[in-house]
Amino acid sequence: MQYCFGVDVGGTSIKMGLFDIDGNVIDKWEIPTRTMNKGVQILPDIASSIQNKMLERELQKENILGVGLGVPGPVDQKGVVYRCVNLGWDVFNVDETLTNLLGLPVHAGNDANVAALGEMWKGGGVGYKNLVVATLGTGVGGGIIVEGHVLAGANGSGGEIGHIHVQDGEEDVCGCGNKGCLEQYASATGIVRLAKRALESTTKSTILDIHKLSAKSVFDAVKENDEVAIEIANQFGEYLGKGLAAVAGVTNPEAIVIGGGVSKAGDILLQYIQQNYQKFVFHGSKDVQFKLATLENDAGIFGAARLVLD
Amino acid sequence: MQYCFGVDVGGTSIKMGLFDIDGNVIDKWEIPTRTMNKGVQILPDIASSIQNKMLERELQKENILGVGLGVPGPVDQKGVVYRCVNLGWDVFNVDETLTNLLGLPVHAGNDANVAALGEMWKGGGVGYKNLVVATLGTGVGGGIIVEGHVLAGANGSGGEIGHIHVQDGEEDVCGCGNKGCLEQYASATGIVRLAKRALESTTKSTILDIHKLSAKSVFDAVKENDEVAIEIANQFGEYLGKGLAAVAGVTNPEAIVIGGGVSKAGDILLQYIQQNYQKFVFHGSKDVQFKLATLENDAGIFGAARLVLD
Repeated sequence: MQYCFGVDVGGTSIKMGLFDIDGNVIDKWEIPTRTMNKGVQILPDIASSIQNKMLERELQKENILGVGLGVPGPVDQKGVVYRCVNLGWDVFNVDETLTNLLGLPVHAGNDANVAALGEMWKGGGVGYKNLVVATLGTGVGGGIIVEGHVLAGANGSGGEIGHIHVQDGEEDVCGCGNKGCLEQYASATGIVRLAKRALESTTKSTILDIHKLSAKSVFDAVKENDEVAIEIANQFGEYLGKGLAAVAGVTNPEAIVIGGGVSKAGDILLQYIQQNYQKFVFHGSKDVQFKLATLENDAGIFGAARLVLD
Repeated sequence: MQYCFGVDVGGTSIKMGLFDIDGNVIDKWEIPTRTMNKGVQILPDIASSIQNKMLERELQKENILGVGLGVPGPVDQKGVVYRCVNLGWDVFNVDETLTNLLGLPVHAGNDANVAALGEMWKGGGVGYKNLVVATLGTGVGGGIIVEGHVLAGANGSGGEIGHIHVQDGEEDVCGCGNKGCLEQYASATGIVRLAKRALESTTKSTILDIHKLSAKSVFDAVKENDEVAIEIANQFGEYLGKGLAAVAGVTNPEAIVIGGGVSKAGDILLQYIQQNYQKFVFHGSKDVQFKLATLENDAGIFGAARLVLD
């Protein structure tokens, strides 16, 4: 039997999975991310953990096709990372370094792109080869799949859809330094910002409490037909629909998969996105399927494992 | 020796070229586009013209690697066109039809995508494998090259950058039916529209004549330091910079090539685009090279020939 490892490197923990080549999870575990000393321990820790797992399960090198890695930052086609601030990493070749430690083929990719590959392989994007995955969490991440492969771009910054400009005249500054980025309206924090603005300016009654706002509380109120919450959901949908229409104009996907914490609101979320998407999109990309992501926090390890088979 | 044919099918004429595999033009000619009867004559006319050329130059089938075609509409990966209104074509498989007529391999692609491939091979994009080509003519066309290949998308509508939404509140309707599309501000006609609006509302003196406006007259006036023309160029640059920043956020190219009639304004055009692009782009795509297209009307035949070698 042949296997591969999928590794999702986060700022606090590293998720790891052992998969067979059909994408079945054989084993799944986590280790802490040791970011001290510029994150110099991270790859050796991953190598040790993989070697232990191989001993434990009596796997030989010949049984392992390779190790895929998702890392929180841009990665180019050769495996060079360009600073992962959350890990303390500077510029170096991850593929080469971990290959030298393990004696196995290694392929690293950006975590959002890798998660998109996971959703294509075993999640909300199954059956599609041209796919956009938008991850709505603290920020807005994205991954683009073209003909079954990740669109990494020149230096691994492909799919950075959270920083598409969607609003002129915005005064708040986005984490990236620009103003009016999609992330400022369509992330969990962006929805809270929209909700605060709405509550501060509305005279309508609402079940929303300005002191307990979250993306969840907004969409819970939408489900209760709360008028103010519905306005907020519509604003959110208009920003995201506009941004995704731009992405689709460029990449013409078969499907758009929505993931991240915000997507737990469920199908009602897709309604607001889809309606607004149709207002802005070029007719050639009107027939896109909207889907919810299904792998949640495991998308990264699935996608990382899939990178090995690519 | 091995050769290939590159064919660029337009609404009034069909440009054709015979190339060696290094991209040298051996011969170049045109035939008229006969669009009567739903354009049923177009592919047979192309087949005849190719067969005549092969006779004339004593080429055997074994010498011909194939025929590439650029057509004015969406084409999927299998060669199926989805209505080319300018040609009268409905939905059918171009690759199969022309292969049956000629007994040679045929690969068709969307004309803007194919032109982008041409610029990558022998034009302004030489040396780059990740490329965005924006063609500023009557409309705004686009072609995206990822790792040396055209990003065609699910149904061939990839790279339709002219219809990215860049302006809320626009009242004029774009040719596509939406409002606020990039094409409404960054095409030759878009620049004239911006210029008209500026001249109607300004009190400043200008050498621009509202009755003789064109993209050329605006950029000629910019070169004379005309204040009103400079404002118009800045508006144009802001719209195009914003749109291209969105495209780059998605695809992270090494270079952006500007072609089409408007690009004849030269390097000064790139200045206005580049300055504004930097205001909107995500930092991962800041280091993009801006280049002018160089193949002009021949980009299509070069790219079509290159499709055969893909």
